[in-house]
Amino acid sequence: MTPEATLARFRDYMVGPARFMNLLSCFELGLIDALREQPGLDAVALGNAVGAKPDAVEQLLHLPVKEGFLAYDAATGGYSLDALARLPEADLQRVLVFLDLVKVTMLRQLFYLTESVREGTVVGLKEFYGYDGNLFGAVAEHKDLRESWATAMDAGTARVDPWFFDNVDIPAGARVLDLAGNTGLGAINTYRLKSSPGLRVTTFDLPEKEQECLENFRTHGVAEHCSFLGGDVFEEVPTGFDIVLIRHFFTLFDKSEVLRILRNVNKSLDVGGQVNVLVPVYQDDVRDHDSRSVDFYPAFFLGCAMGQGGPQKLSSWSGWLEECGFEVTKVIVEDPAAIPADALPLQAVLTARKAA
Amino acid sequence: MTPEATLARFRDYMVGPARFMNLLSCFELGLIDALREQPGLDAVALGNAVGAKPDAVEQLLHLPVKEGFLAYDAATGGYSLDALARLPEADLQRVLVFLDLVKVTMLRQLFYLTESVREGTVVGLKEFYGYDGNLFGAVAEHKDLRESWATAMDAGTARVDPWFFDNVDIPAGARVLDLAGNTGLGAINTYRLKSSPGLRVTTFDLPEKEQECLENFRTHGVAEHCSFLGGDVFEEVPTGFDIVLIRHFFTLFDKSEVLRILRNVNKSLDVGGQVNVLVPVYQDDVRDHDSRSVDFYPAFFLGCAMGQGGPQKLSSWSGWLEECGFEVTKVIVEDPAAIPADALPLQAVLTARKAA
Repeated sequence: MTPEATLARFRDYMVGPARFMNLLSCFELGLIDALREQPGLDAVALGNAVGAKPDAVEQLLHLPVKEGFLAYDAATGGYSLDALARLPEADLQRVLVFLDLVKVTMLRQLFYLTESVREGTVVGLKEFYGYDGNLFGAVAEHKDLRESWATAMDAGTARVDPWFFDNVDIPAGARVLDLAGNTGLGAINTYRLKSSPGLRVTTFDLPEKEQECLENFRTHGVAEHCSFLGGDVFEEVPTGFDIVLIRHFFTLFDKSEVLRILRNVNKSLDVGGQVNVLVPVYQDDVRDHDSRSVDFYPAFFLGCAMGQGGPQKLSSWSGWLEECGFEVTKVIVEDPAAIPADALPLQAVLTARKAA
Repeated sequence: MTPEATLARFRDYMVGPARFMNLLSCFELGLIDALREQPGLDAVALGNAVGAKPDAVEQLLHLPVKEGFLAYDAATGGYSLDALARLPEADLQRVLVFLDLVKVTMLRQLFYLTESVREGTVVGLKEFYGYDGNLFGAVAEHKDLRESWATAMDAGTARVDPWFFDNVDIPAGARVLDLAGNTGLGAINTYRLKSSPGLRVTTFDLPEKEQECLENFRTHGVAEHCSFLGGDVFEEVPTGFDIVLIRHFFTLFDKSEVLRILRNVNKSLDVGGQVNVLVPVYQDDVRDHDSRSVDFYPAFFLGCAMGQGGPQKLSSWSGWLEECGFEVTKVIVEDPAAIPADALPLQAVLTARKAA
């Protein structure tokens, strides 16, 4: 890369926050909705429609026009949807949910990324919310964080969960442990999507989740087949299971913690017992492949969610499993061509069995 | 643009803040400096060098490796400078100054862009600094804002000022008014770069600037040729001048304010009197040209600096001059190929004379 090209790349970085918020603000102000309802409005009419000064409306609309999202007619001064007119509503909604997640859980907090990395905690949550801890604790106390986060997570799970269960074998009548299964929704999905005579699914999480979890099992009519065990994955994992599912969990931790968990899981299983791990991955050579996750997750996990953790390269996840006494038997990575072009993570399922 | 391509563009927007801060944090932590001093360090050595956990170092370095800024040797786990090794130090310093400006004056404040547009004030300054007013007032009270801002402005001025004076004719012995000339540095530069027998330059600004301005004139040895007049451009512009310079000023205002100022300037001049306006411009067709400013300035002026204002299209600046009784005689726009690839603004000089 020439110095000239390097400087041009830096320029892309410089404008990242401004571009992000300029675009989102066009939606937040209602400018896009107004144009969808009434194409051809000019800046004055739009300003009246959304309660903003026409001068500001004009400034904000330069970028979506440049981008080809909107069209501008210099003769009339009117704006209309361009590429946005051809975007299916469901796609746009998914994108807007994610943009809101970035705004609420990241934009300000990232200011303290360097401090968060030094201290290993999310300094931004402390600074802006007075909250000592991680995002998952903070969402319980702060409605704005929770609403943005929960909506985005639901959307993400809706895409990934069916794919995960499509790629996991659960033999008839297996005894399945959903590790860090929270309040049971993973167990419920497991039972529903992989049901077989005698299948039993157990949610394992901190004891305080038990009541809500059991309620969920009753509500969803699976209380006969699902159960809850309280405990701490860093201490001990319960025995008596054929298959352990570990989903959306390892990215919260650094290597040493992941190894502690995996060793406990290994100890809990009989030889041949299986673990299925769902994790987002970076491509092993971040330069050669579709490495879209790299643009987002390090900053998200370090500066906004945990102060640690993050996805790993596939070779790291595999290596860590083997380091803890597993033999990796199957690896499936999402096909970048098969997920929406706006989606960031490439999820992987790693299946491994306890080696002799 | 297909829906697929539109979604991919949205993805670029989503990752803008994360990419920005991930990259900057690599510099802030000292990772880049450590690699410059000692190429080949691995994540553990780097973590020791900068006081961060190796896991976090590895996460943050994925992006600059993907980008080609750094190289990663999978065999040794060592990192080294790649494109960054070929970037002249002065270029890198200029880039870092701008990245810091974005972080300090924009990243958090942009969270309130929508509110700032609705209210016409910089809500982010109120929220994060308890400051009612614009960035230029806030820098006087807040050291972090001031240091970041002043450093970036000095760098910007160093590039633009010589170019401005190269493109402005000031006849020998002219009487020049530097409108909104602050504490006199523009007048001093004018006298030095365009000096001629009998040239007189007067700084016009709010009366409270007078003392510091006159001190500056004395310090720079131009007190004989430069003077100060106190007043308010929205009320009245002093008469008795051949040439008025208006630099770095109009972008602070919306159209109605710019027209009020221009009308006052017109009133103050004799027919044939000249005005030279230095302003950043958007290309008239933001889709067809190098429109890099559009990515940055609307969000900056509306959400971070003023709650209003911003650059305009060249046709708008020209049209406004004509609306106020001027005839535009010369327009010069920076050549995108002649400014550094990381630089955002395209500055323009519009020269106009008072029409009969």
